[in-house]
Amino acid sequence: MVSEIREIGVTAGKANDFSEWYTQVVMKAELADYSAAKGFMILRPYGYAIWERIQKLLDRELKKLGHQNIYFPVLIPESLLAKEADHFAGFTPQVFWVTSAGDTTLGERLATRPTSEAIAYASFSKWVKSWRDLPLLLNCWNSVLRAEIKGTKPFIRTSEFLWQEGHTAHEKEADAEEEVYRILELYRSLIEKILAVPVYVGYKSEKEKFVGAEYTTTLEALMPDGRALQMGTSHNLGQNFSKPFEIRFLGQDNKEHFAWQTSWGVSWRLIGALIMTHGDDKGLVLPPRIAPIHCVIVPIYYNVKDREEVRSECERIQQSLKKRKVRTHLDDRDHYTPGWKFHNWELKGVPLRIEIGPRDIKAGEIVMVRRDQGKKVHVRNDLVETAVINSLREMQENLYESAQASLRDRTTYAQEYSELMSYIQKDFGFVKAAWCGDESCEERVKDETGADIRLIPLTREEARTTCVVCRKESKHVAYFAKAY
Amino acid sequence: MVSEIREIGVTAGKANDFSEWYTQVVMKAELADYSAAKGFMILRPYGYAIWERIQKLLDRELKKLGHQNIYFPVLIPESLLAKEADHFAGFTPQVFWVTSAGDTTLGERLATRPTSEAIAYASFSKWVKSWRDLPLLLNCWNSVLRAEIKGTKPFIRTSEFLWQEGHTAHEKEADAEEEVYRILELYRSLIEKILAVPVYVGYKSEKEKFVGAEYTTTLEALMPDGRALQMGTSHNLGQNFSKPFEIRFLGQDNKEHFAWQTSWGVSWRLIGALIMTHGDDKGLVLPPRIAPIHCVIVPIYYNVKDREEVRSECERIQQSLKKRKVRTHLDDRDHYTPGWKFHNWELKGVPLRIEIGPRDIKAGEIVMVRRDQGKKVHVRNDLVETAVINSLREMQENLYESAQASLRDRTTYAQEYSELMSYIQKDFGFVKAAWCGDESCEERVKDETGADIRLIPLTREEARTTCVVCRKESKHVAYFAKAY
Repeated sequence: MVSEIREIGVTAGKANDFSEWYTQVVMKAELADYSAAKGFMILRPYGYAIWERIQKLLDRELKKLGHQNIYFPVLIPESLLAKEADHFAGFTPQVFWVTSAGDTTLGERLATRPTSEAIAYASFSKWVKSWRDLPLLLNCWNSVLRAEIKGTKPFIRTSEFLWQEGHTAHEKEADAEEEVYRILELYRSLIEKILAVPVYVGYKSEKEKFVGAEYTTTLEALMPDGRALQMGTSHNLGQNFSKPFEIRFLGQDNKEHFAWQTSWGVSWRLIGALIMTHGDDKGLVLPPRIAPIHCVIVPIYYNVKDREEVRSECERIQQSLKKRKVRTHLDDRDHYTPGWKFHNWELKGVPLRIEIGPRDIKAGEIVMVRRDQGKKVHVRNDLVETAVINSLREMQENLYESAQASLRDRTTYAQEYSELMSYIQKDFGFVKAAWCGDESCEERVKDETGADIRLIPLTREEARTTCVVCRKESKHVAYFAKAY
Repeated sequence: MVSEIREIGVTAGKANDFSEWYTQVVMKAELADYSAAKGFMILRPYGYAIWERIQKLLDRELKKLGHQNIYFPVLIPESLLAKEADHFAGFTPQVFWVTSAGDTTLGERLATRPTSEAIAYASFSKWVKSWRDLPLLLNCWNSVLRAEIKGTKPFIRTSEFLWQEGHTAHEKEADAEEEVYRILELYRSLIEKILAVPVYVGYKSEKEKFVGAEYTTTLEALMPDGRALQMGTSHNLGQNFSKPFEIRFLGQDNKEHFAWQTSWGVSWRLIGALIMTHGDDKGLVLPPRIAPIHCVIVPIYYNVKDREEVRSECERIQQSLKKRKVRTHLDDRDHYTPGWKFHNWELKGVPLRIEIGPRDIKAGEIVMVRRDQGKKVHVRNDLVETAVINSLREMQENLYESAQASLRDRTTYAQEYSELMSYIQKDFGFVKAAWCGDESCEERVKDETGADIRLIPLTREEARTTCVVCRKESKHVAYFAKAY
């Protein structure tokens, strides 16, 4: 039995070999698997269940704000993709091209969508005629394809990924601007309150913004290896697409105008951040609000005599928890031992485990174990519901606080270029530094340290000094970090 | 105003020009739109909302039966697709091929999935090791691509379509067989009880079965133009895939076995059937159980004095209906007239309309109109909830009964080949006839009349005569029809 546990469990330490640890958690917790096509990933049922929770919660909020779902085709004619020149140039190196159907060579190549701006906005120009048709608030749940030539990493960097992409058109410039921040705030709330992953929020630099956008806002988290992870982006597209795609409408002033637009997205990468942030040497640790299963009940009996009594008590507890909306799973498989089940559900990061055996029943209690603490707690029968609900709430808070403390500890400020370099070289985390705004300084940092400007904070922080690179007048405090 | 209504309304008659009527309903009710890529379709928000209802209801039932969702990549290496030879031969004429990524030509062509058997079962062989891993009950919500060279028709025949595909593996042959019928029954329930479309259920002939299956079960509806529409299929794959893909497991008998498999799917074609079956000259008619909006409330006022009173009464009614789980929409847009709104919501097939004006408020009543009847009914204020709920139930039943009567009226039996030909030539509907089971007879009918064998009933009907074509001994009663 011991050897079996060892085999199914995670063998790499999170602190010692972070990359290997991550891959093992993904594979052994059965979140995802590699596919026959290189660079592609299969999202397995347990990973998919987490994605479904993200979808459900985000979809509900988007609908409350008036967004509607839509589906655009996966294949986009090359000429359409090329309509916005910057956009096209930014994506084509990664585009998969369909060149034939059956034995027939196509007259024009079709791109598998790297993102849907082009195909969506070709339709917007048909649908938007009058100010009455605005705002147009649309969202797609789909997958996009961008060939990854470099090494791929499950959830983080794959040639196809599941995501949602929002596409909106507005009457006024200010309406589009509001939408950008409304979505950014929605994402922040999802990421911090549900996934328990703290983020910095800000603008991308000109170099790093979405190709075709006026500006890009971003949410950046910090992973335990000191690398930043972009969690989502919300773009103000201005009229950069509405002009080439001719999204024109008759305004309330009876004149023709081009629409103002936004686009925004989060992907299954969020699941990668979850794993990295909260996992431990035993495997995944899921914040309760995103966990497909809140609480697993493991019946413990070693003879047939006890079996019925224990199972019926387990079922009673399961029913009472389900009534309180606790997502409870009773693992009553007879072909696995309780020990095997403990390890398996720990590996899968289920927040709470309840153990019930004949002795517990006699004592009128159950044993409860919080995944992030691992301590056995005895809870009286009549207090189980309250104890479970409180533990789930506390665990959610504790996971966030712990990640928040780590983000704080790993964010620093560099006065001197040498300091910046040294912090980055030792994978410290986020390094704030004054920046003149010039792309040449940004590129020098990238070339010499490997770090990007991850963001410029929304509420711009005053830099009372000069650019950390060139010592000319500084415009911003920028957040530098190496990134996934 | 009249001209505006004419422009947005359906101008073709369902009885006179069915094909044009269908296209106009799809486009004008804003269910779908054509896309820049030929043969592809955009599912617009109102159509997507119907698809989401189908997804929600089917997904819930599939999960109750123990199925889990999963995502497999959209690109499949050619060598993998080719592993089951019949399967490959059946699909390749319609496969879109990806041959390059960016500027790089790929070493091996990648197919955009025409269906996921190949890529799924390559993984099954890794995941299934022991009888303890079975049954494996998986489902995918995705899109598949099959190039349509002939004319396309929204929802019915497009080069990409949204669907779900189920893929299962079982320990015993009987388990797989049970799964095939369990899913068939689930589909029947969805299609008849929710979509209110009656179907015949049966087996496909050898010629028409899924390429690679042992046998295919099917659900066939009849459209008003006398053509059959395949609504869904559930396949018993036997060990036809588990052998080439090597899905082997150690059984309870400690011996190695190949798994027994099924696959099954329904697509957005169901929406096409809905439109054709229930629509009328004013546009779409939605059965309440599938309608995104059950009931639209249109406030009626012509001066500011009445505005507040009418709107507050509308809101009160909306709230009381929402509490009873009636999906109610209050159309309080000021820039459209009540008349425009009536026509618009009729076009969109909303089952019930409630009109509330100052006179109704004084009389302590509302006006209610059922979409399929069009008659104004006055309902006392305190009876609105009951009236709405009853009307929705009755409308659901009436739509089904009416479609059921039409299916019955348009199903007949042909003794002679000349009868069969004559029925098919006048687009009568389903023509039952005795059949010897030979593909040559099946093909002769196809060549000479354009009709296929749509199904052989599940409970085989005794044919007390000889084959309608060759007059040899007959094996089955087969259902012939021209089909979409």
